[in-house]
Amino acid sequence: MRIDIITVVPELLVSPLNESILKRAQQKGLVEIAVHNLRDYTFDRYRQVDDYPFGGEAGMVMKPEPIFRCIEQLQSERTYDEVIYTSPDGIRYNQHEANRLSTLGNIVILCGHYKGIDYRVREHLITLEISIGDYVLTGGELAAAIIADSVVRVIPGAIGDEASALTDSFQDNLLAPPVYTRPADFRGWKVPDVLLSGNPKEIAKWQEEQAFERTERLRPDLLDPQSV
Amino acid sequence: MRIDIITVVPELLVSPLNESILKRAQQKGLVEIAVHNLRDYTFDRYRQVDDYPFGGEAGMVMKPEPIFRCIEQLQSERTYDEVIYTSPDGIRYNQHEANRLSTLGNIVILCGHYKGIDYRVREHLITLEISIGDYVLTGGELAAAIIADSVVRVIPGAIGDEASALTDSFQDNLLAPPVYTRPADFRGWKVPDVLLSGNPKEIAKWQEEQAFERTERLRPDLLDPQSV
Repeated sequence: MRIDIITVVPELLVSPLNESILKRAQQKGLVEIAVHNLRDYTFDRYRQVDDYPFGGEAGMVMKPEPIFRCIEQLQSERTYDEVIYTSPDGIRYNQHEANRLSTLGNIVILCGHYKGIDYRVREHLITLEISIGDYVLTGGELAAAIIADSVVRVIPGAIGDEASALTDSFQDNLLAPPVYTRPADFRGWKVPDVLLSGNPKEIAKWQEEQAFERTERLRPDLLDPQSV
Repeated sequence: MRIDIITVVPELLVSPLNESILKRAQQKGLVEIAVHNLRDYTFDRYRQVDDYPFGGEAGMVMKPEPIFRCIEQLQSERTYDEVIYTSPDGIRYNQHEANRLSTLGNIVILCGHYKGIDYRVREHLITLEISIGDYVLTGGELAAAIIADSVVRVIPGAIGDEASALTDSFQDNLLAPPVYTRPADFRGWKVPDVLLSGNPKEIAKWQEEQAFERTERLRPDLLDPQSV
């Protein structure tokens, strides 16, 4: 898989993309991640990527030309399955979508900044708008890092312990059950007896009950078949 | 405002916290952000922060002792309004919560890793669990960066153009209207005439209609008074 990220602040992505799981997955050859500085695709000597909005609103708007130039350059080199823009208007990102993206070959993620991008880019170039949540960020870089992390970690081989990923929250529409480690007694707060019982059947039953109880109490919408 | 972030991968946070708006807000003295390496609060020579889970599940669990030690150390230095853990079980983070957090004095954000943290930490130390979305990340660091970014940018003075933040998506429960910049005609795709009209009243009316139309079509749940 290949992920191309287009940004006006490439330095923001240095540590998220070069540490932890994304670093290891790149070293293993499971994913190739390329970051492109949008300013390298400008035409003027000030390398201007934004301009004033028509209509006199507050804020600046990202110009269409450098974005088209950058993405069309990439598209001339290979075929992309999705050209993604991170935006509050997009589909709500979730684990199902992360799983789906992880099966694709090549994707582009365009990071918005300022007041957003010229709407013609969204109409004519973007194939998928993703919202990672109902909050406003300074730019799309952290959203792109989140998409990259959540997608890459479900590529087989990316994390050491695949059984662990399978029991993560959301993979079965359930929140994960509580987890405990040593000491069994910490300041008088004890680990539930069943987890110390050594009885795998009882433990599995307790974990399943806890997962259902927590999901019903905290996120009943996940149990609604319509929400999937 | 002060934000303390506790992590086992401090290097992941270097560029998100030291670039862009978070850098400028710290330079302006609007926020102080301190990153703490949880390994500095371990007791053994291997600086071990995780251990096997009781019950024999896959994955590792973050031990309670270093977390209590670190947070109790911080609490001995100042009072915290919230001790936050980023988790899929948490309340769904949104712009209202970002606005609320931006009015607080001091907050701690604990980044989870591996299979999660010992449940006793969540029962006895954490005051607020936040989920930034229904997807699984390798660790809580990107979630912490997202909380920091979204909170700090609404602190008055953090972004240059405050009028711009007020018209962001979600601040009025509406998605933002489309934005356009020069050229007025790009490859035959034209900017809507009204935005070139120079008539502020007509422009404002069009923007409001677009915001409503887009919200109704793409995110009708935002218009439901029950969802706020």
